[in-house]
Amino acid sequence: MDTKPPRLTISEVENWLHEDAQYGDVTSEAIIPATDKTKAVLRARKSGIVAGIPIISQVLDYLGIDYTIHINDGSNVVESDKILSLGGNTREILLIERLMLNFLTHLSGIATQVANMVAIVAKNNGTAKIAATRKTLPGLRKYQKYAVKIAGGTTHRFSLSDCLLIKDNHIQAAGSVSKALQLAIENRDFTKRIDIEVETMEDALLAAEMGADIIMLDNIQPEEIQLIHKALVEKGLRKKVILEISGGINPANLKDYASLPIDIISMGSLTHSVIALDLGLDF
Amino acid sequence: MDTKPPRLTISEVENWLHEDAQYGDVTSEAIIPATDKTKAVLRARKSGIVAGIPIISQVLDYLGIDYTIHINDGSNVVESDKILSLGGNTREILLIERLMLNFLTHLSGIATQVANMVAIVAKNNGTAKIAATRKTLPGLRKYQKYAVKIAGGTTHRFSLSDCLLIKDNHIQAAGSVSKALQLAIENRDFTKRIDIEVETMEDALLAAEMGADIIMLDNIQPEEIQLIHKALVEKGLRKKVILEISGGINPANLKDYASLPIDIISMGSLTHSVIALDLGLDF
Amino acid sequence: MDTKPPRLTISEVENWLHEDAQYGDVTSEAIIPATDKTKAVLRARKSGIVAGIPIISQVLDYLGIDYTIHINDGSNVVESDKILSLGGNTREILLIERLMLNFLTHLSGIATQVANMVAIVAKNNGTAKIAATRKTLPGLRKYQKYAVKIAGGTTHRFSLSDCLLIKDNHIQAAGSVSKALQLAIENRDFTKRIDIEVETMEDALLAAEMGADIIMLDNIQPEEIQLIHKALVEKGLRKKVILEISGGINPANLKDYASLPIDIISMGSLTHSVIALDLGLDF
Amino acid sequence: MDTKPPRLTISEVENWLHEDAQYGDVTSEAIIPATDKTKAVLRARKSGIVAGIPIISQVLDYLGIDYTIHINDGSNVVESDKILSLGGNTREILLIERLMLNFLTHLSGIATQVANMVAIVAKNNGTAKIAATRKTLPGLRKYQKYAVKIAGGTTHRFSLSDCLLIKDNHIQAAGSVSKALQLAIENRDFTKRIDIEVETMEDALLAAEMGADIIMLDNIQPEEIQLIHKALVEKGLRKKVILEISGGINPANLKDYASLPIDIISMGSLTHSVIALDLGLDF
Amino acid sequence: MDTKPPRLTISEVENWLHEDAQYGDVTSEAIIPATDKTKAVLRARKSGIVAGIPIISQVLDYLGIDYTIHINDGSNVVESDKILSLGGNTREILLIERLMLNFLTHLSGIATQVANMVAIVAKNNGTAKIAATRKTLPGLRKYQKYAVKIAGGTTHRFSLSDCLLIKDNHIQAAGSVSKALQLAIENRDFTKRIDIEVETMEDALLAAEMGADIIMLDNIQPEEIQLIHKALVEKGLRKKVILEISGGINPANLKDYASLPIDIISMGSLTHSVIALDLGLDF
Amino acid sequence: MDTKPPRLTISEVENWLHEDAQYGDVTSEAIIPATDKTKAVLRARKSGIVAGIPIISQVLDYLGIDYTIHINDGSNVVESDKILSLGGNTREILLIERLMLNFLTHLSGIATQVANMVAIVAKNNGTAKIAATRKTLPGLRKYQKYAVKIAGGTTHRFSLSDCLLIKDNHIQAAGSVSKALQLAIENRDFTKRIDIEVETMEDALLAAEMGADIIMLDNIQPEEIQLIHKALVEKGLRKKVILEISGGINPANLKDYASLPIDIISMGSLTHSVIALDLGLDF
Repeated sequence: MDTKPPRLTISEVENWLHEDAQYGDVTSEAIIPATDKTKAVLRARKSGIVAGIPIISQVLDYLGIDYTIHINDGSNVVESDKILSLGGNTREILLIERLMLNFLTHLSGIATQVANMVAIVAKNNGTAKIAATRKTLPGLRKYQKYAVKIAGGTTHRFSLSDCLLIKDNHIQAAGSVSKALQLAIENRDFTKRIDIEVETMEDALLAAEMGADIIMLDNIQPEEIQLIHKALVEKGLRKKVILEISGGINPANLKDYASLPIDIISMGSLTHSVIALDLGLDF
Repeated sequence: MDTKPPRLTISEVENWLHEDAQYGDVTSEAIIPATDKTKAVLRARKSGIVAGIPIISQVLDYLGIDYTIHINDGSNVVESDKILSLGGNTREILLIERLMLNFLTHLSGIATQVANMVAIVAKNNGTAKIAATRKTLPGLRKYQKYAVKIAGGTTHRFSLSDCLLIKDNHIQAAGSVSKALQLAIENRDFTKRIDIEVETMEDALLAAEMGADIIMLDNIQPEEIQLIHKALVEKGLRKKVILEISGGINPANLKDYASLPIDIISMGSLTHSVIALDLGLDF
Repeated sequence: MDTKPPRLTISEVENWLHEDAQYGDVTSEAIIPATDKTKAVLRARKSGIVAGIPIISQVLDYLGIDYTIHINDGSNVVESDKILSLGGNTREILLIERLMLNFLTHLSGIATQVANMVAIVAKNNGTAKIAATRKTLPGLRKYQKYAVKIAGGTTHRFSLSDCLLIKDNHIQAAGSVSKALQLAIENRDFTKRIDIEVETMEDALLAAEMGADIIMLDNIQPEEIQLIHKALVEKGLRKKVILEISGGINPANLKDYASLPIDIISMGSLTHSVIALDLGLDF
Repeated sequence: MDTKPPRLTISEVENWLHEDAQYGDVTSEAIIPATDKTKAVLRARKSGIVAGIPIISQVLDYLGIDYTIHINDGSNVVESDKILSLGGNTREILLIERLMLNFLTHLSGIATQVANMVAIVAKNNGTAKIAATRKTLPGLRKYQKYAVKIAGGTTHRFSLSDCLLIKDNHIQAAGSVSKALQLAIENRDFTKRIDIEVETMEDALLAAEMGADIIMLDNIQPEEIQLIHKALVEKGLRKKVILEISGGINPANLKDYASLPIDIISMGSLTHSVIALDLGLDF
Repeated sequence: MDTKPPRLTISEVENWLHEDAQYGDVTSEAIIPATDKTKAVLRARKSGIVAGIPIISQVLDYLGIDYTIHINDGSNVVESDKILSLGGNTREILLIERLMLNFLTHLSGIATQVANMVAIVAKNNGTAKIAATRKTLPGLRKYQKYAVKIAGGTTHRFSLSDCLLIKDNHIQAAGSVSKALQLAIENRDFTKRIDIEVETMEDALLAAEMGADIIMLDNIQPEEIQLIHKALVEKGLRKKVILEISGGINPANLKDYASLPIDIISMGSLTHSVIALDLGLDF
Repeated sequence: MDTKPPRLTISEVENWLHEDAQYGDVTSEAIIPATDKTKAVLRARKSGIVAGIPIISQVLDYLGIDYTIHINDGSNVVESDKILSLGGNTREILLIERLMLNFLTHLSGIATQVANMVAIVAKNNGTAKIAATRKTLPGLRKYQKYAVKIAGGTTHRFSLSDCLLIKDNHIQAAGSVSKALQLAIENRDFTKRIDIEVETMEDALLAAEMGADIIMLDNIQPEEIQLIHKALVEKGLRKKVILEISGGINPANLKDYASLPIDIISMGSLTHSVIALDLGLDF
């Protein structure tokens, strides 16, 4: 199913333009005639996965710039591939150039890395999905989560409002895994799942028995994960829960986890430490 | 002179909280009693430079969370250093935890990398300043630029409105370097500087003679940069202009440029490809 | 666990005040001296459940009005019970009077009705929870859902983003219950539950077998609901799913459904057709 | 003269969509293909007066959904009447469905009730107009007042800024009816009317003599109202003032007041306790 | 009765600061130490009436600057009079200096001119009030109207929503003065007055007879105004209406109108052509 | 090069309309039929320079009003010249009439005065440019600066963020002209110019030697300005700096400064004390 790109609000469009040109573009307004028109092509300068085109194109619409999209979000590009053609008023195209590149290179950087992670899992015959976390940049979460999804990842919680995730702090406050889980089950709305972070096999089994929907094994070594999986299978609990692993998993060591019999691998770095994908606008 | 942290607007505070908790925190509200209080300490989990504390503390004020700042922005931390102590309502601290970390780890990641680049220049006995570019993330520019500055870098243009930067597109549109520069000089307001991107020694000399304030040598090899500098010196033009280099300079090759007799080294990656500095909140 | 009242944003506070006094209060400004002070007491004029006090008190804080809360949200009041005492500048209290009453009488109206419904279920020895729907008023959802919860109801989905709810339109588009459910299972994020609206026992059993988290029996008669429950029990599926009933259930006929072996009773009227609870401000 | 529907602001449109789908519609995005198109018809499920179509259609425009309006605001519908036909992207129509219904059923509920009240007055050969009050829901006043007007009611004050309404609190603060009215007359701008709430015949006469534009008889029995009217006539004051009655008038007892020789009947319940008119969207 | 100063919204405060310092104050941040403190005094540099202090002081509160108000809005100042003392962080005081002066010199310029006009009327033994119009600057109306009122003027309509003002265009569209007035009387809400612009004695008498609340004599010579007044008196209509004159009345010719037996003199220039009152901040 | 008109944000458009018609236009809605159409022409009623047409036309677009622009911004008009023709719904044109005039008469008033000042300089064979200052009205700066530029003036600093301007307060805080300038040079970003206000020849020479970009001679008599210019020439410093004069220069005495060998004449009154240019809309 095609992932739907989030809609920019008008105030986002206007704030982003304002951030870069509160009092206009003093260079173009000094040098480029008001009615000058031009064409430009956005091309890849490195290989990767493109993300964000139908989002940023809303800014192009806002500014009255014509465009043709050559490549759909989620597609692979290699160096010099045409992604987007622009045509219109030169001053307006120069006004949007940097904002467009800043947005697209960031989202495409995320998508590219997610695709790499998905490929590592596949190559190791793993079946787990790669998930992003809430470790996103302020104001950009829905766009970052979209980039994750378009590249084959899954979004995980969007926010604190859509799924319970019981962490060590909650467990401390409640007194024990079972008390925390009990409170969660009693007090949550029935439309919300419960994910619980556990650190021992014992807690994992307990959580599964009590009815957690998702067990997050946090910072646990591959061998131990195997054992927990096995114990869950033996107790007939494995199918009742989703097994998620998280904590310290990075591109370098992902292969060590990729073939484990788990369902979800969460990686914060996918959105908190993004290497932009190099794209450029040629006039 | 101490760098002044940008002020968050109330709508940024509210939008950022809303992004993460439009309908509240369903976990804490199920498990943590409403009046529960706690203390927490923000600590470094890696070495680096901290940035953003007096900014994010505005969100703490908004939520009524008490805090003590142990380390000023721009300071070095090593693993386990205490940065910030929090005290207050447990639900509120859990509400802000992730937003606070997302913001601080990003800004501190920038500051850390900038400090590394500044150190490379110093180690090579260079005198150039490290500058950020407009390659920032939508909505976060003033915070990213602040992180650059607090770590010893310089901000470069804030936006299209505060300095002219004549690029190849402007030169093409005008017909030549001299025509573009002539238009810029005639049409700019007198309070704005002119920076011009050039690719040859000839253009660099022409721009300096005509009165550009800054010459940006874009994607030029070190030896060629030396020659241009020398030519400018010989023509008595070197002191009249600021020499900036840009394009393809990265942490790996910075040392090749660090000792050149130039004034400014601009690096887009400082803000477009940020590796978060690992920080954590311990309860 | 105490329900946490949603926080008003500053722009809500300002927009609401602006709606009622864009150019000030022309009556009070003509008659009441600028420094006049007064006291006022908010009292119940009918019996019911109070909701919204800690929310509207944020507007009192904004205007610098002192107050004492006598009754917590979710509590029962009878006629003439004191709810809130105010003290401060007379003009400011008159400015806020109507907005405060408009907000509180609406939320308290919701809470009162929810409590009535919960009582009907209890009286009939039912165990189902009363849930609100997305049939809320634009701009007021989080406050309306809060009033439901404070009175003993549950919130159901907050929005389209936090739980899948497969309706007839989705089933039609997909071609069948099984196809729609299959797509949902494949494409949803693992942190989101799936609720599915079914109209026949066959579909209910199918949905439960395929792994739906919640089965919503829409517009089905009590006897048929009993049969579906029984069939689910017999197939060993009843514990795997949450049974929700919905459609045409109202205060008048709720008792017919109250003792059914189901988990959730959803009622749109709780938020779409609210009778304000009569409260008044006495000076 | 046709009543002009209020214009939605873009931020209202975006906030209302955001309230229901901050992170998208997880159901439709899982099940409905991105390019799927559909048609849908909005129909009445009960008899009543429709209100709000040209307002909500601004959201349809915003989302790029085509539509045909079959029935003008203020018209009567009976069960199954077609009100609005929609055509367009299925995901977008499902996105807007609930918001559209929430808004229209509420406004149509108001219009329906107002029309009922107007009919009661007419049936009793009364000539008074039915007026709404400021007892509206935060953020929705202009829409609610519009629904009142489209159904034959009148709006009364829009806010505290457009007409003086002297209430008991103002009278207390000033010391007497005459002092309060004197201050109002002296200090108000000449473009603003003065309405004054009185409880006795004596005060009614005094207010009329002093120059009040409107006399509001608050919580006064029909016979007493008749006497006040008569006294005003005898003193030659009746034509100088508008007589408004208010307080405790509801659908059940309206007929007792409907034939009185007064000008305005104000009823808070028209906007504070609204029974939604049942409408539905058929695909 | 003291005029109540309008409240700034937080977004006005933030937008105004942002307009002048999106990326901070590059001068002060380079020269003034972060913790430097200073005192400053706002003084008059010309004689006039001060307006706006309690409004702009909200920005001082926002920035944490201490202040003492020496002179109330509406008071006379002469050169060098102290108006406001400030104390606090030097950078913050420099940040607000220009915005504060821009706002206060504008509002005080309005107040000063209004007071001059009021004085001319008084000197000529006139009894008319000076009124401002809707000829205000976008975004500043409520502040400008406040300055008019604090100096002894009256506000006239705040906006198109609070009083009917029938102009030539409406009369043309309706076909005649009587038709326009008839429609207005039938369709307006009873809480709204009707002002009608007329150009002949005949229309003035007709309007008064039909029940207009206010007759605006537009661009009519003083002798003719006298005649219209007389005719109204003779017909017993003068007390039923407020007589307003407008059009082409300016400081230079006001004395020709000042002693006329009219109620209101409206002058657009009070708000559309404002000469700032010179005020300065001394450190 | 054509000056680019600033873009209105949607929230400015909506706030400005809201300021004048929060609850609609009660006159037109009572008298003008909903579908009535009309034509109107905006004409000059006085001679001057027009400014703001392409800005306010964004509001016309927003409201769906057709228009033809007859005269470009910056052009001269004489009485009765057609500027803009409008066609469309009568209610909408009446809704926008006053806002349009308020905006255009203000901006055109600025442009007219700037053109007058430019003409005085030209007539005296001066070569200096006329510059506006930051003495603008809150919320209107970019529009006011645009009007200055379209009429042949220059904008000067847009805000505190785009150029350093060292004033007496900074000099006091630093201790001396040389210390302040030294700090500025060290701490500013290289893309920002430094302007410094000096009061003596000695300081002017010092500032020029140290590398200030602009020397602002504040409140200095013409003869003294000549001497400072001469001294700068003799020291070979004149070409290195821009000479700006400011303080107490007004339309009456501008001719005394117009032929001086300086570069910039700054006048605050251009934007702080604006006489609106009379324009009118004829139906």
